[in-house]
Amino acid sequence: MRISALAAAAGLPLATVKYYLREGLLHPGTSTSATQATYDESHVRRLRLIRALTGAVGLSVQQARAILALVDDPGDDLYATLGRAVGSLPPTAAEPSADDPDPFPRARAALEALDQVYDPRFAAVAQLESALAAAEAAGMPISEERLLEYGRRLREIAAFDLERMPREPHAAVEYTVLGTALYEPVILALRRLAHQDAAARRELGA
Amino acid sequence: MRISALAAAAGLPLATVKYYLREGLLHPGTSTSATQATYDESHVRRLRLIRALTGAVGLSVQQARAILALVDDPGDDLYATLGRAVGSLPPTAAEPSADDPDPFPRARAALEALDQVYDPRFAAVAQLESALAAAEAAGMPISEERLLEYGRRLREIAAFDLERMPREPHAAVEYTVLGTALYEPVILALRRLAHQDAAARRELGA
Repeated sequence: MRISALAAAAGLPLATVKYYLREGLLHPGTSTSATQATYDESHVRRLRLIRALTGAVGLSVQQARAILALVDDPGDDLYATLGRAVGSLPPTAAEPSADDPDPFPRARAALEALDQVYDPRFAAVAQLESALAAAEAAGMPISEERLLEYGRRLREIAAFDLERMPREPHAAVEYTVLGTALYEPVILALRRLAHQDAAARRELGA
Repeated sequence: MRISALAAAAGLPLATVKYYLREGLLHPGTSTSATQATYDESHVRRLRLIRALTGAVGLSVQQARAILALVDDPGDDLYATLGRAVGSLPPTAAEPSADDPDPFPRARAALEALDQVYDPRFAAVAQLESALAAAEAAGMPISEERLLEYGRRLREIAAFDLERMPREPHAAVEYTVLGTALYEPVILALRRLAHQDAAARRELGA
């Protein structure tokens, strides 16, 4: 297809598609003349991914570029690449001080209680630390009982997610990034709706 | 305690405490003279709540005021009050068009599949609709299998949350608001860490 048809298929303005081409986020089409190229389904899929990252996920073009580089070149250590890709997603956690021997005490204790891997280089550790600290500061610290209950259910969800991860490395990075970022709002909405459902069934206030 | 000691106990600048007093978010102290008043533990707790709402939860003072009004006066229909309080939390969903007979088709179908209450007035329904639409647009729609798995685990978490809700109505509203907003980042961080843990155990890429 021509570039105008590609833009229409992706639901993007032509200028935006040209911008992504110039910036190298979108791979070039096949040249059919000195001034024309043809595009295929791979370009439509790529634009859909760029649109998700810069739209629903809320990344800047520079942040999206970093993630697309990992999708394009997952390297030999897929585990490390998946960690870096997820670590590039919001929320951005503050870097710990290099001098601090124990920068994430709450997250470390929580992961020990859950018998899970503790690796302070992983961005979600800093994210957990600040979430636990905020709950504590508000006078609603997460009890160990609650931590174990949440942790158990979320491990079940994570196991489901991982079982369905594509084996092919490029697809695995894309699945992990989008499945993390796009399914998180689904999970939060479902929890709120489960509260509402449980409360309605108990006929609170009725 | 004097107002300066109150500010110190709450970890807030004195000017901020005075501002909350003037705005009526914080209840007055007991007057001890024409120009002085004394404050107690109830003021410290209230400031901690205001700080959580305007800090970690990210509300404006006006939004916090609306939630504090529900904490202060839960009314007779606690179920409706809890729904309104949670509906006042971010993310803000777009109002559906009054003309649209089925404004949330994806969310309605999902809740039917989950055999849960569908009430389009509840803000989390619009939130679920936009989350499902974003996943679909990115070419990663939530499958029915995934929906049922997530829904089941989140109902288990929600049942745990609801069992621990205080019976006293003012405390119930506060618990619901803070337990929704402050525990959501904990849940997302725990899911990401559960992915990492599961991946590490499978020694992906090793």
